[in-house]
Amino acid sequence: MGVIVVTGIPGVGKTTVMQKAAEGMDISFVTFGSVMIDIAKELKLVKDRDEMRKLSLEQQKQLQIKTAGKVGKMKNVIVDTHCTVKTPKGYMPGLPEWVLKELQPTAIVIVEADPQEIYNRRAKDTTRDRDPDTVEKIMEHQMMNRAAAMSYATLTGATVKIVYNHDNALDVAVKEAEPVIQ
Amino acid sequence: MGVIVVTGIPGVGKTTVMQKAAEGMDISFVTFGSVMIDIAKELKLVKDRDEMRKLSLEQQKQLQIKTAGKVGKMKNVIVDTHCTVKTPKGYMPGLPEWVLKELQPTAIVIVEADPQEIYNRRAKDTTRDRDPDTVEKIMEHQMMNRAAAMSYATLTGATVKIVYNHDNALDVAVKEAEPVIQ
Amino acid sequence: MGVIVVTGIPGVGKTTVMQKAAEGMDISFVTFGSVMIDIAKELKLVKDRDEMRKLSLEQQKQLQIKTAGKVGKMKNVIVDTHCTVKTPKGYMPGLPEWVLKELQPTAIVIVEADPQEIYNRRAKDTTRDRDPDTVEKIMEHQMMNRAAAMSYATLTGATVKIVYNHDNALDVAVKEAEPVIQ
Repeated sequence: MGVIVVTGIPGVGKTTVMQKAAEGMDISFVTFGSVMIDIAKELKLVKDRDEMRKLSLEQQKQLQIKTAGKVGKMKNVIVDTHCTVKTPKGYMPGLPEWVLKELQPTAIVIVEADPQEIYNRRAKDTTRDRDPDTVEKIMEHQMMNRAAAMSYATLTGATVKIVYNHDNALDVAVKEAEPVIQ
Repeated sequence: MGVIVVTGIPGVGKTTVMQKAAEGMDISFVTFGSVMIDIAKELKLVKDRDEMRKLSLEQQKQLQIKTAGKVGKMKNVIVDTHCTVKTPKGYMPGLPEWVLKELQPTAIVIVEADPQEIYNRRAKDTTRDRDPDTVEKIMEHQMMNRAAAMSYATLTGATVKIVYNHDNALDVAVKEAEPVIQ
Repeated sequence: MGVIVVTGIPGVGKTTVMQKAAEGMDISFVTFGSVMIDIAKELKLVKDRDEMRKLSLEQQKQLQIKTAGKVGKMKNVIVDTHCTVKTPKGYMPGLPEWVLKELQPTAIVIVEADPQEIYNRRAKDTTRDRDPDTVEKIMEHQMMNRAAAMSYATLTGATVKIVYNHDNALDVAVKEAEPVIQ
């Protein structure tokens, strides 16, 4: 098994699904963003996570490349990251070409749920303080992620697996995810 | 602010939205196609816009690259172009890889509206002489543009912002577009 | 006319549509997968189609490149292949970057039908032994193919033509496909 990327918008439960699917297997989990912060700290570019946003676009790009290079060399690893990140300037690709060329994933998992389910899960999460996305915007985000994932697949040959994590049906989601890590 | 691309299918009102969003700011507007014709004239390849279609595919590609190179060097510029162009042979990408590599946009705006709204606006436009697209075809075109935009984003790292320009709600559209040019 | 790629999910009738559209014209048809097997046999890598799946990923990639190189040099050719292949690990891109760079298609045709129509056609096909996809999964597959095709278009400049092959309306489909091969 090579590098597997798992993605999904906030509230979809991607980490739960993949960790359960990988239970008992010799597989590591890393979060792309956390590895990137660690590297930035090692390079004395930042002291903590909050300082990351002060880096220039070019510095961020170089850090992304270093991170992808490091993670891409790991074996049997599931990388937790974003297909696209929703920002005020639009959907930002989580795996632009320069990341893909280093990471070379063999599969990209998109964990999805019904937009209404995601809306409800987010509404219950009291740690979220932002204006909530409407159901329509959640649908849009999931659609853009699918398009992004197929573009990532074109550049790498990775397969794109869509896994539905519906309410009260985690077992179904886990079963859908299992073939990807076998 | 770098190079921002604004796209949207005919009848969606992309130019109006972006010009209003940029009001009072030091931002230039250029139309990709017009810059390309100017360059073609300078190079004595054509005398007018009508002759552009007589150029070979390779000549057009070289002109696209020159145009993207020129526009890509501008600062604070909004480039008006097509995400995809609908032709009898299918949807043609407005920003193929060779254009993107020179243009290096930092954001791609897709102005959208409900397919029925676009249909109605086109029906009122008496300068349009082609067979009208059905509502379903308009929906299809907007969907293909989203997919194309995420592919452009993958190659450049640009964000993709979807702005809805609904009837009688230009102010909402302008407000959605503003963060992209700040 | 250069290299035209025709795609469509099983049960959509892509080959029928394109062969009828090309009737009486000097156009060759090749199936990407068949050319690949022929090359693998010539190179003594396999004895038959069944052995193809035993090849390593790297061997398969090299064979894809050789196949694309061979087909890409043909003139007036329609290449029958998959936009994406549905596998237990997810949707696998049929035309990853390394294939596109050699194949350089000028147009990609996606033959589609209503998911329910495809479901019914597959149900009638007694040679199919797999678990049938649901109507929702068929819809998903067609959507992923559109996204993949626009990504292929971005890398090559190819147009993407969507042709609907509805029940009892083959003539309409053929008429939609004709401009692509003219």
